[in-house]
Amino acid sequence: MTPQPNPQAGAAVKAADRAHVFHSWSAQELIDPLAVAGAEGSYFWDYEGKRYLDFSSGLVYTNIGYQHPKVVAAIQEQAARMTTFAPAFAVEARSEAARLIAERTPGDLDKIFFTNGGADAVEHALRMARLHTGRPKVLSAYRSYHGGTQQAVNVTGDPRRWASDSGTAGVVHFWAPFLYRSRFYAETEEQECARALEHLETTIAFEGPGTIAAIVLETIPGTAGIMMPPAGYLAGVREICDKHGIVFVLDEVMAGFGRTGTWFAAGLYDVVPDLMTFAKGVNSGYVPLGGVAISAEIAATFAERPYPGGLTYSGHPLACAAAVATINVMAEEGVVEHAARLGAEVVEPALRELAERHPSVGEVRGTGMFWALELVKDRETREPLVPYNATGQAAAPMSAFAASAKAHGLWPFVNMNRTHVVPPCNITEAELKEGLAALDTALSVADEYTR
Amino acid sequence: MTPQPNPQAGAAVKAADRAHVFHSWSAQELIDPLAVAGAEGSYFWDYEGKRYLDFSSGLVYTNIGYQHPKVVAAIQEQAARMTTFAPAFAVEARSEAARLIAERTPGDLDKIFFTNGGADAVEHALRMARLHTGRPKVLSAYRSYHGGTQQAVNVTGDPRRWASDSGTAGVVHFWAPFLYRSRFYAETEEQECARALEHLETTIAFEGPGTIAAIVLETIPGTAGIMMPPAGYLAGVREICDKHGIVFVLDEVMAGFGRTGTWFAAGLYDVVPDLMTFAKGVNSGYVPLGGVAISAEIAATFAERPYPGGLTYSGHPLACAAAVATINVMAEEGVVEHAARLGAEVVEPALRELAERHPSVGEVRGTGMFWALELVKDRETREPLVPYNATGQAAAPMSAFAASAKAHGLWPFVNMNRTHVVPPCNITEAELKEGLAALDTALSVADEYTR
Repeated sequence: MTPQPNPQAGAAVKAADRAHVFHSWSAQELIDPLAVAGAEGSYFWDYEGKRYLDFSSGLVYTNIGYQHPKVVAAIQEQAARMTTFAPAFAVEARSEAARLIAERTPGDLDKIFFTNGGADAVEHALRMARLHTGRPKVLSAYRSYHGGTQQAVNVTGDPRRWASDSGTAGVVHFWAPFLYRSRFYAETEEQECARALEHLETTIAFEGPGTIAAIVLETIPGTAGIMMPPAGYLAGVREICDKHGIVFVLDEVMAGFGRTGTWFAAGLYDVVPDLMTFAKGVNSGYVPLGGVAISAEIAATFAERPYPGGLTYSGHPLACAAAVATINVMAEEGVVEHAARLGAEVVEPALRELAERHPSVGEVRGTGMFWALELVKDRETREPLVPYNATGQAAAPMSAFAASAKAHGLWPFVNMNRTHVVPPCNITEAELKEGLAALDTALSVADEYTR
Repeated sequence: MTPQPNPQAGAAVKAADRAHVFHSWSAQELIDPLAVAGAEGSYFWDYEGKRYLDFSSGLVYTNIGYQHPKVVAAIQEQAARMTTFAPAFAVEARSEAARLIAERTPGDLDKIFFTNGGADAVEHALRMARLHTGRPKVLSAYRSYHGGTQQAVNVTGDPRRWASDSGTAGVVHFWAPFLYRSRFYAETEEQECARALEHLETTIAFEGPGTIAAIVLETIPGTAGIMMPPAGYLAGVREICDKHGIVFVLDEVMAGFGRTGTWFAAGLYDVVPDLMTFAKGVNSGYVPLGGVAISAEIAATFAERPYPGGLTYSGHPLACAAAVATINVMAEEGVVEHAARLGAEVVEPALRELAERHPSVGEVRGTGMFWALELVKDRETREPLVPYNATGQAAAPMSAFAASAKAHGLWPFVNMNRTHVVPPCNITEAELKEGLAALDTALSVADEYTR
């Protein structure tokens, strides 16, 4: 599609936005939101007619790209039949979405509680765990993000938590493995894994195993940096949970539904959690939807005892119909396998080659369509290109990197000192190469800030 | 539309539901969800072809009924253009929804932060209040419901809160006015109002005014019983808030967008809160959407300081397009005025007449399309027809009432010892009369349980 410039319409959209829209995670007067006119596949465009290749998939959720015609048609058909219906009833789109999701979740996670997004999925998973165990505490990792509501942000392990931490009770943060910035003075992945498990065991011993309801982890932490867990880590956490009767919650809101080149990242590590949260990729965010997949054992806890939680739009038919269509499209078009193949054959070699040429690239890590470049001032010391949680002038090197990418038609995902390569899972090889070329140019800008 | 029976399809929907859908607020093996085949206007029907007149508006959210053709068309058009886009951008549907909402919110509540529903709207409103004031505590009322996530359910004042109360900090519950079951031994509305305000002032004095960030109230409490606040109460709370620098949050998730025969119930009482939450009626729940309307003063707090909260689907284009269409339909078709007129001319006289004939009706209260019948064993003692939070056999009288209504083609809203008359705001007079006749019959069943 060739975008037609229409600056006047863009100005009106922008004016109403600035007058009336209060934006997420932002100082309202210091932002300048780009007015977006349209989007299709891996691209979107503004009202000037400038196109951007979206290497961020929105907020890492448009796993099938924008405006997939089959999913758009499914939404239109469901809208014509039944846009909405209350959660206490059985309706076709809800039943079918639950069935298709349960078919793909690992192990016996066969009951699906639907929410509106990832944050409330985490909220409900933790409530289920606390009620199932009768224990108060939740353990979660630093370098994590679990959502923006109170409980979800309390278990988050990045600075977005800080402002909402007053009045938090029952959340304890520990360190998960990350060899590149090891908290355990480890030199190998094996050592990092063993020490991270020992650290978790000791934390549990000192917190009191009988006080801990759940350990919640992103299978592969997303916005926090796409740190691939070393072999054996998640299996080790699973063992620790079993030993102490702790509920193991895996958060696959970002990693799930094809992002890692498999339906769920848990599958990469052959681990089955007790509860698994999802959102985003379940329907590429075409309609707000999230949920919790629940093991038989935890579902049994609420067989004859009411589960004390719910929401008006649980299992919203329009959202569920979009999930049904998205999952079917992903299966029919081999989107998951495509992401795995292009990740291994195109993205990984290209990023490793960029890392060789650009001194600002400290590490490359990821899988499928889920990659992070850790940008540094100095490869030896591994000093981040910008400080942890930097804003304004302190974050200038990353802003300059992002501005260059945008100038070259690439919309990058940027968080702290990292850029993530997280395009739609059905991006073409040609699009990937176009984006990687713009990334190459933008990394040259980042290089200027290295020592 | 004449529903066609299709029991085989219904059985398949039901089987998949029972196998895979985990339902809100339910003991999973003790429920028997009705499989619903379709819905239109004020009716829905099952796979046997049985039709029900929906006096519950789903969960009090389909304010324009099911499948309004203009809103369905708007969803289909937006799906064709732009189903989704990330929140950091300016997009037309988002800008326009914010503008139309801000046009209708009271006072200077002109900035709109969009969420996915009511619970996360309350979560974010309380975070804004805490950060704006720098104070930790929130005061909320018993007999209230504010949502299912941790913080939202912690401020809730009904039994749905209990299971999630461990680890709560900073929430204090007080009693709001309700003359029929006065906690203040009052005999008139004036006395109830004065004493309720005195009770609130004293609670604040003993909690420490400087520790209280917000008072959150449903303008008219919804599921808790549609207790109309006496004249002067909300204005009195507004004064108390101003005196102590407390943020006044009105929750209009259920009461807003026409339900009370006005755009927002705050308008009935001429009171302007600092923050107002909404969801449900904003787009009749056709696509999940909620939000917070923010005063100029609180918005200014986050002008140059980032607001530490957000969500992937904030201002979701499909949800916002449904809101734009819904608000325009409500304006063009005079839905709000219709609800006010039929509430006053049809519902109120009919319910008062039913109350005269049925000994089980203890009180009738409400406005617009927002009415409660308080069912009692004894009009003199006002003993509720079933005990507070009764389940199973103890709730049998209400179950028998509901079963009779359903047998006569009326789907009632039932909570504890109450039934609420909360049909779509655009229900016709003929439909209302049909429903009121079935209600009459069902109340005869309730009468059998009176003394």
